Amino acid sequence: MSVRSIEWVGEGIEGRLRFIDQTLLPGRVVYVETVAAEEVAAAIRSLKVRGAPLIGIAAAFGCVLGVRDYGGADGDGVLRRLDEVCRMLAQTRPTAVNLFHALERVRRAGDAARGAGRDGVVKKVLEEALAIAAEERGMCRRIGEAGLELLRPGMRILTHCNAGALATGGMGTALAPVYRAHAEGYGIKVYVDETRPLLQGSRLTAWELMQAGVEVTVLCDGAAAWAMRRRLVDAVLVGADRIAANGDTANKIGTLAAATAARRYGIPFYVFAPSSTIDPEIENGDGIPIEERPLDAITSWAGVRIAPEGVAVFAPAFDVTSAELISAIVTEEGVLRPPFEGRLPGCGSARGRS
Amino acid sequence: MSVRSIEWVGEGIEGRLRFIDQTLLPGRVVYVETVAAEEVAAAIRSLKVRGAPLIGIAAAFGCVLGVRDYGGADGDGVLRRLDEVCRMLAQTRPTAVNLFHALERVRRAGDAARGAGRDGVVKKVLEEALAIAAEERGMCRRIGEAGLELLRPGMRILTHCNAGALATGGMGTALAPVYRAHAEGYGIKVYVDETRPLLQGSRLTAWELMQAGVEVTVLCDGAAAWAMRRRLVDAVLVGADRIAANGDTANKIGTLAAATAARRYGIPFYVFAPSSTIDPEIENGDGIPIEERPLDAITSWAGVRIAPEGVAVFAPAFDVTSAELISAIVTEEGVLRPPFEGRLPGCGSARGRS
Repeated sequence: MSVRSIEWVGEGIEGRLRFIDQTLLPGRVVYVETVAAEEVAAAIRSLKVRGAPLIGIAAAFGCVLGVRDYGGADGDGVLRRLDEVCRMLAQTRPTAVNLFHALERVRRAGDAARGAGRDGVVKKVLEEALAIAAEERGMCRRIGEAGLELLRPGMRILTHCNAGALATGGMGTALAPVYRAHAEGYGIKVYVDETRPLLQGSRLTAWELMQAGVEVTVLCDGAAAWAMRRRLVDAVLVGADRIAANGDTANKIGTLAAATAARRYGIPFYVFAPSSTIDPEIENGDGIPIEERPLDAITSWAGVRIAPEGVAVFAPAFDVTSAELISAIVTEEGVLRPPFEGRLPGCGSARGRS
Repeated sequence: MSVRSIEWVGEGIEGRLRFIDQTLLPGRVVYVETVAAEEVAAAIRSLKVRGAPLIGIAAAFGCVLGVRDYGGADGDGVLRRLDEVCRMLAQTRPTAVNLFHALERVRRAGDAARGAGRDGVVKKVLEEALAIAAEERGMCRRIGEAGLELLRPGMRILTHCNAGALATGGMGTALAPVYRAHAEGYGIKVYVDETRPLLQGSRLTAWELMQAGVEVTVLCDGAAAWAMRRRLVDAVLVGADRIAANGDTANKIGTLAAATAARRYGIPFYVFAPSSTIDPEIENGDGIPIEERPLDAITSWAGVRIAPEGVAVFAPAFDVTSAELISAIVTEEGVLRPPFEGRLPGCGSARGRS
């Protein structure tokens, strides 16, 4: 059973939003309960809540809280308030596409309740937020079901970054089949890359897997190739931030390093993502824009300087793994093995499943 | 011009040992001057002085200081004191082979001065320590000269860990040709892997290259494959801790990851080491013992917990890069390209140079 990173608790429209403050993990496990949209926005901005799907869910519930706070009773005023709250939440993490999709959905739901008064709009927006959260959970579950066919009892998995319950509203993408296999008693063992510079692997993935009772070993990113060469790893499972039509996959920096080593040592490399991650408009990896941003975490850590003052830093947030290094792409629609060209969900008519 | 990580300063046998406290880099640059063998031993134990060749030099000078402190004048007492000091220094880092070689040399030098009184023995031991330091510098210089043929003006180099002036008494091994090329005005640019878990790359290599005016960019270990795929790197240069007779090379963990990516993207991968690093008794990499030790640096940093309490850690100190991934091995004897089998210095009669 994976942790619940976000949850609506209490009585219907009188409820509260509860989420884990991920900035304090793994040292402290703090569940925050809030009734204020502003606090949700602040939590997204400060990375207490992170992971594109999770941000979308948090924002949708944030709208519920924001509209509920409206003092008046007139229908138009409620919808204006919803609009304001949506705009505030949209400004928290301007690049997360799930955020905009979720906000658009709750805005439309609110509009549909026009004339039903404040409580009517709140009820409708809450229903939509709950629906988004439920769909996310279902999507993770289906990815987990589909991916289960790739795992065998006793398998030793390597993963990178966090593609688990802490990034989604459900049991994750790359970690979904791991949780599923764990529930089946497969005795899966997971090696987790610490994932510099922000350490989502050692801070978040290791923690959530341990909460679920999965056997976890943390290693530095540079040690993964050696673990593979030493035959300690049977498969590599990662998530994805964007997948091009040909299967080229953008994911957290360090993913490509794991993929090149996996290929060299004959270890399968699997990508897990909802089909919404596939961008049919982008032909191949060259078209995926890669953010590069100097990160303080590379030059100092916990206030201690770890690189010289004034040194240049190469700090891409993501890298692109060529489709030729990927053994299968798993979405909620199933497991797709190469060739991916024209066969990924949403990319052409000739869809295939292995 | 590379930094001087260690130096005997002052008037002959009245001099002092000066070294950089490497634990404070890059935040603070502190040169320690000492006249006490015990302080040298403590500096080695606490990693203020690190890098196998540098430890050997420091220990040799430590013997000078220890013997000079001897209060008596009788020749046998001086040699007993030398013996005590050697034993104390030998216990600082029990696995560094250079340490034992250096101590053995100064002990023999002292013995040869038997009967010359305290000052005679001190003088002889100092001469030997200075000879060891000079030989180290010469060895680095010759590696740099030999390696220069592999570099071209404007080249962009990737290196891992610290194989520079801070690890040796001279200008380093892998960094020696970089310093040499820099002096020739090649305009070399160096990408430095931060080298988790102990960050020798970002803390030490970046610092010493910047001191010399070399253009440096720091990156996380996981970003190196992406830098190579993006064609930002023209060659990878690393040091070595042990080289087997077939060319398989043990070096700091993360080296193999860089080597697999370099091979995939057609980038030459060069190993630099004194020929004493080659172990003709070890047929291939399988025979090289690899230390694995849980390291606090993987679970906490500067007092902040970065992995869950009780998590298992895979923390090999070194990995082994197969000879087939190595484009050339450079020693003070020259550049050797594959096949390495039977052709490395000290391994068989048919030595070759490219």
